[in-house]
Amino acid sequence: MGEFELIRHYFAAAPCAQGGEGVALGIGDDCALLDLPAGEQLAISTDTLVAGVHFPTVCDPLLLGQRSLAVAASDLAAMGATAIGFTLALTLPVVGPDWLAAYADGLGRMAQRCGMALIGGDTTRGPLSITVTVFGRVPTGLALRRSGARVGDLLCVGGYLGSAAGALPLVLGQREAPAEVAAPLLEHYWSPLPQLHLGERLRGLATAALDISDGLLADCGHIAKASGVALEVNLAQVPVSAPLQAFLGQEAAQHAALTGGDDYVLAFTLPERALSSLASQVHVIGRVLAGQGVTLRDPQGRDITPVQRGYQHFRETP
Amino acid sequence: MGEFELIRHYFAAAPCAQGGEGVALGIGDDCALLDLPAGEQLAISTDTLVAGVHFPTVCDPLLLGQRSLAVAASDLAAMGATAIGFTLALTLPVVGPDWLAAYADGLGRMAQRCGMALIGGDTTRGPLSITVTVFGRVPTGLALRRSGARVGDLLCVGGYLGSAAGALPLVLGQREAPAEVAAPLLEHYWSPLPQLHLGERLRGLATAALDISDGLLADCGHIAKASGVALEVNLAQVPVSAPLQAFLGQEAAQHAALTGGDDYVLAFTLPERALSSLASQVHVIGRVLAGQGVTLRDPQGRDITPVQRGYQHFRETP
Repeated sequence: MGEFELIRHYFAAAPCAQGGEGVALGIGDDCALLDLPAGEQLAISTDTLVAGVHFPTVCDPLLLGQRSLAVAASDLAAMGATAIGFTLALTLPVVGPDWLAAYADGLGRMAQRCGMALIGGDTTRGPLSITVTVFGRVPTGLALRRSGARVGDLLCVGGYLGSAAGALPLVLGQREAPAEVAAPLLEHYWSPLPQLHLGERLRGLATAALDISDGLLADCGHIAKASGVALEVNLAQVPVSAPLQAFLGQEAAQHAALTGGDDYVLAFTLPERALSSLASQVHVIGRVLAGQGVTLRDPQGRDITPVQRGYQHFRETP
Repeated sequence: MGEFELIRHYFAAAPCAQGGEGVALGIGDDCALLDLPAGEQLAISTDTLVAGVHFPTVCDPLLLGQRSLAVAASDLAAMGATAIGFTLALTLPVVGPDWLAAYADGLGRMAQRCGMALIGGDTTRGPLSITVTVFGRVPTGLALRRSGARVGDLLCVGGYLGSAAGALPLVLGQREAPAEVAAPLLEHYWSPLPQLHLGERLRGLATAALDISDGLLADCGHIAKASGVALEVNLAQVPVSAPLQAFLGQEAAQHAALTGGDDYVLAFTLPERALSSLASQVHVIGRVLAGQGVTLRDPQGRDITPVQRGYQHFRETP
């Protein structure tokens, strides 16, 4: 088998290549074709992961396969879109059958969890890099934007924060931890679960939403700016998992939850009356106020907002 | 301005970022949103260009901007789709304002020629690599596939072949030529014009189509295989441009036209009666027969089919 036949073999055989709902034509022609039901819009997002910048050059390809789709699909969740499929642009320095089989396996597992079909792509030779473009559908006018937060709304998040950023020393092999601590943190880093069901549930309820990839405070800043409002975050309400606290201690765990990136948990605003119709996984962490910017408050109500710096993801020394 | 603000600045200001028809939401939120008219399907294709593999590492960023969109948009032409927009995943080792401005300019020029809007993307740090995902719309059931060629159909191409492959020594600076020879060849390499209008015109007429990226004979093989037919190509009918003949001589020019890649000219099959309704730019080069594979014939009807090897694009020595 030639190099690219090998690739086609692995990806065409992966469960994720099976046509999903709305996929009229998948891999194999010049383009894929999607059908879109009347009254719906197509949601599209693209994410690139570069070896040595967004993940360690040496890593488990199965985990990388899961992660490379999950981080892109999380953008569909943030818009309240129902996932349809994705294209994969895979650039590889060398093509090893074992690597490809494991990568395709991981990709396929995440595709199944998200209900997505691999509909096309491109494979090229070069430094390891992965670009995934995801497609979803959402009823016209109901996509969750960043710009609709209103004064008086609650500020919420869809789950524990900081786990992925906190897991970095484990990912990089710089620290060790007991299995009951390390396993859930590594799971969150390598296999974040896009909150697609929560996103769909938030349609017509949330006034603004995004997925946390740059860190809670930085991403809240995006909502505040797009909506022309201020956001207040109460530190005591920011949810931090028990394994993260056990691994880092309370203060560092809170710091990771506030500024760590790669969470891929939804942050959103909504009127208080809408809260009761949502599942218990939702955590209220603050409120929308008139003004601008993001303020962090301690339990005594004092302003303890840290100086913000953009999250730089993981980065290997050049 | 920070690094990524710089990038946003250039691409948000580029003419290609203006919303095209069907673009409900462009750059700036978690996803872009597209509207699709009732009775139409969305066509999607992804292409990656890697520095040192698909283009010289040192090259004019304006030309690279044009080329990186053109090669992807050509897949829309091959499906008979009307272009809507594209996402850009740009991985850059360092961010120079001059480079970015010129690249965005070239991208914008090609976007305008193709009637496409930049609807989203991702910018990352790493070895230079460009992944463009293109979106088009096509009436349901009228997309041009590779699989519909029928015995008795004519085999046609939409323009001169071999220019891009023939231009490689000029692109790489290995040879020189007078301006009247070099200019059109370099133009074809750096700025191939996706045959979008021809593709739209072929809807309902062509029985099979693709764009020639691997070389005429190899790509005819794709149609033959997908359609379960044989294709016969008459060498004397394969169109070669005067500049290419002047640069390479007749024999090498024909070889480039038959096996050179990166033409991004449409190849298609259609019933003879449909030919009269097409423009003069269409060249009949052969016929669809019962059987399988591709046969090349000289003017005396002899089988002169060369042994085929896949086109490897341009490649720098590692």
